Amino acid sequence: MSTTPSGADDAVGAVRAHVTAHRAAFLDDLAAWLRIPSVSAQPEHAADVRRSAEWLAAQLRATGFPTVEIWDTPGAPAVFADWPAEEPDAPTVLVYGHHDVQPAARADGWHSEPFAPETREGRLYARGAADDKGQVFFHTLGLRAHLAATGRTSPAVHLKFLVEGEEESGSPHFRALIEERAARLTADTVLVSDTGMWNEDTPTVCTGMRGLVDGELVLHGPDQDIHSGSFGGAVPNPATVLARIVAALHDEDGHVAVPGFYEGVAPLSARERALFAELPFDEDAWLRTAFSHATAGESGHTTLERIWARPTAEVNGIGGGYQGEGSKTIIPSSAFAKLTFRLVDRQDPAAVEQAVRAFVEARVPAGIRAELTFGGATRPCLTPLGHPALAAVVAAMETAFEQPVRLTREGGSGPAADLADVTGAPVLFLGISVPSDGWHAPNEKVELGLLLKGAEATAHLWAGLASRSREAH
Amino acid sequence: MSTTPSGADDAVGAVRAHVTAHRAAFLDDLAAWLRIPSVSAQPEHAADVRRSAEWLAAQLRATGFPTVEIWDTPGAPAVFADWPAEEPDAPTVLVYGHHDVQPAARADGWHSEPFAPETREGRLYARGAADDKGQVFFHTLGLRAHLAATGRTSPAVHLKFLVEGEEESGSPHFRALIEERAARLTADTVLVSDTGMWNEDTPTVCTGMRGLVDGELVLHGPDQDIHSGSFGGAVPNPATVLARIVAALHDEDGHVAVPGFYEGVAPLSARERALFAELPFDEDAWLRTAFSHATAGESGHTTLERIWARPTAEVNGIGGGYQGEGSKTIIPSSAFAKLTFRLVDRQDPAAVEQAVRAFVEARVPAGIRAELTFGGATRPCLTPLGHPALAAVVAAMETAFEQPVRLTREGGSGPAADLADVTGAPVLFLGISVPSDGWHAPNEKVELGLLLKGAEATAHLWAGLASRSREAH
Repeated sequence: MSTTPSGADDAVGAVRAHVTAHRAAFLDDLAAWLRIPSVSAQPEHAADVRRSAEWLAAQLRATGFPTVEIWDTPGAPAVFADWPAEEPDAPTVLVYGHHDVQPAARADGWHSEPFAPETREGRLYARGAADDKGQVFFHTLGLRAHLAATGRTSPAVHLKFLVEGEEESGSPHFRALIEERAARLTADTVLVSDTGMWNEDTPTVCTGMRGLVDGELVLHGPDQDIHSGSFGGAVPNPATVLARIVAALHDEDGHVAVPGFYEGVAPLSARERALFAELPFDEDAWLRTAFSHATAGESGHTTLERIWARPTAEVNGIGGGYQGEGSKTIIPSSAFAKLTFRLVDRQDPAAVEQAVRAFVEARVPAGIRAELTFGGATRPCLTPLGHPALAAVVAAMETAFEQPVRLTREGGSGPAADLADVTGAPVLFLGISVPSDGWHAPNEKVELGLLLKGAEATAHLWAGLASRSREAH
Repeated sequence: MSTTPSGADDAVGAVRAHVTAHRAAFLDDLAAWLRIPSVSAQPEHAADVRRSAEWLAAQLRATGFPTVEIWDTPGAPAVFADWPAEEPDAPTVLVYGHHDVQPAARADGWHSEPFAPETREGRLYARGAADDKGQVFFHTLGLRAHLAATGRTSPAVHLKFLVEGEEESGSPHFRALIEERAARLTADTVLVSDTGMWNEDTPTVCTGMRGLVDGELVLHGPDQDIHSGSFGGAVPNPATVLARIVAALHDEDGHVAVPGFYEGVAPLSARERALFAELPFDEDAWLRTAFSHATAGESGHTTLERIWARPTAEVNGIGGGYQGEGSKTIIPSSAFAKLTFRLVDRQDPAAVEQAVRAFVEARVPAGIRAELTFGGATRPCLTPLGHPALAAVVAAMETAFEQPVRLTREGGSGPAADLADVTGAPVLFLGISVPSDGWHAPNEKVELGLLLKGAEATAHLWAGLASRSREAH
């Protein structure tokens, strides 16, 4: 054991020195990974997703993990790695990320090949550069820096990595995988590196993601399309009934009008509202990122509250009847809406599904048959603001960035909540991506400076979590 | 001049004898016409539509019309024929029909080739058998029977025929054609043979069709699809706004809630309601023809009133956002609804369009841009119940069918209203098709017995109109 803590300044210098010294090799390795088109949504890339898993496994082994395994699923494989600390009472951290990427094609508007990484003006352009390969891979550099700076031969915390291969396809087998492997995944905290920061100049730590329920409502009316001249006005039109149900989802104040929907949603605390309000929010700039021309939503809440901390009901797709050019005088046989509900706080996906089902059933008139099906649900997850591990993450980020770090949330949903559910551990987030990184879009990139800060932050985090844990004992 | 009127019984017998004697030749000729696949909606059949027009022109010449012309349009050609009566004060009747047909393919579920007419159990199966070639062609037999029965060498009324070639494609050039040729189309009455009767056992005369306004509403929200996790709840969703507008089209009683929509709609008279009520309406049977499982609509009105005599708003198609399998967490960039409004009475299509535009504009929130476009509109048209020509049509039908004839309307819309508009003449309907004939569907057929009754009825009609006209002078 050689865990003599150096002074804070020494540690900062040593971590930075290691990161700087190994920058070039780290970026070369990352570029090699980014060249593997591990697109989980496209069956023709199944072999690439496996190659990506194997590539990462080799890197984790090279970093020093004594246990590295490929975990197969009925879909794409995940990578699991485990490196116990020497101290038996060191806390266990389970790091989550994913090695699969969104589809990408040069023709979509990329300025360079999406799977031929290119560095321009301090940014690395490639599919997966930020989401999520870059943010998984900075952990390897951070871990090496942690070991080098502390002189340890194993990390100060018991580290487990679980890097899945189907996140961009909705993680269809993730829940089953972690339930099956629960005994291997025990942890005191879960650390998710698949989110971002406020922007380049404002380092932040995410403290929550919304949950998700997705459903599809199909309304069946006449057994076939019928003539709207001959029958119009005298039989129920499923597209009209659908519109009425969708319109009834919200009241005039933008609240979701499904009875029981807000069960489990506590009002935001004064502290939470204050944390949001102190962020440098520029509504015009935000609207540009949303490609939108006005804000809208639940009255009594700011835009940040609406997207981060309030539950929503959104129509993702709607359809039915004639879709071609011009006019066709029919009453459609059926109509559908694809709906997603974002959940917060203690909202329970199963309860929301039941509330939506009752809401729909109450609105289906005679002559219309409703079919409502739900896909996989995701719970909301929230880092408790008073948790000492959160303080450790903030401190590690502040050390790396040398400036105050604020707290945010994210409006999206992720499988992290399943990890919280199965492990019973709180979820923390550490990510350095910024909104301009273009997740899921052409010309995805990562800021090289931030990527290295991410490595530094994790190097500080393992030491910090261990020392806070010792203090607490 | 040899217009010695024979006694009524003699006329009936003479007409029937002629029709019966020429039945076989008439059906052979009709079958030849039905073999021409004059599908106006399919460009590959443009030559067939022309061949159909030329075939009909030749038949009208053979029937005796001194003037027969092919009238070209920017689309498919129409056929015009003109045969003045010898009596200069004889009324002029403009007969309307169409020689184009709906698309048809054996694979759609036909039991025989749609363009290889086949007679089975007293029914002639072929695309166009009822809609509308059969109902145009019985006029030639009826006219020959009229001449034979009366001993005339020209009809008792001044007869004009206008048989268009684009009705099944929405008559895109019809209005321009009849405006341009208005001087040739002057008439005292318009007779439309493109409708039907109540059923095989209940001969009826149609007394009106609804008008039509068709519009497409496109709502534009974000400039591209955006992530519903990142932005959901804080920007307007065009699919939600669309649903609200569509839902608001009707109030809870099923009335159309567009302000000004009912301008020009008089309540049904007691006589009109009584005429509808005396029809042998069987709701279960009607629902089966509508492939529907319940009635619905404007409160305070019967099903027949709803489909024939009340204006409506219907969604024919709705769409926007994700249309594929499963779920995609986006807020769609746009959403659309295809809407048709059926009009009655004195509703003005232009006023309805304006009312709908104002209705939509009042419901478009900030951040959404609405695009509302209207297609070609059709006026409602109604035969005045007290018009002597209607009495003549009813009498002619009663003579042919030897049973009382009731009055109906049709819920659909047709270019007949344009003829009324341009000629200023009232529109009358004479058709023998029945609901089971399968217009626009596989296995379209016409009942041979009814087809011949149609010929008989027109034979009586020309004599009847002429004698009523003489009485009126």
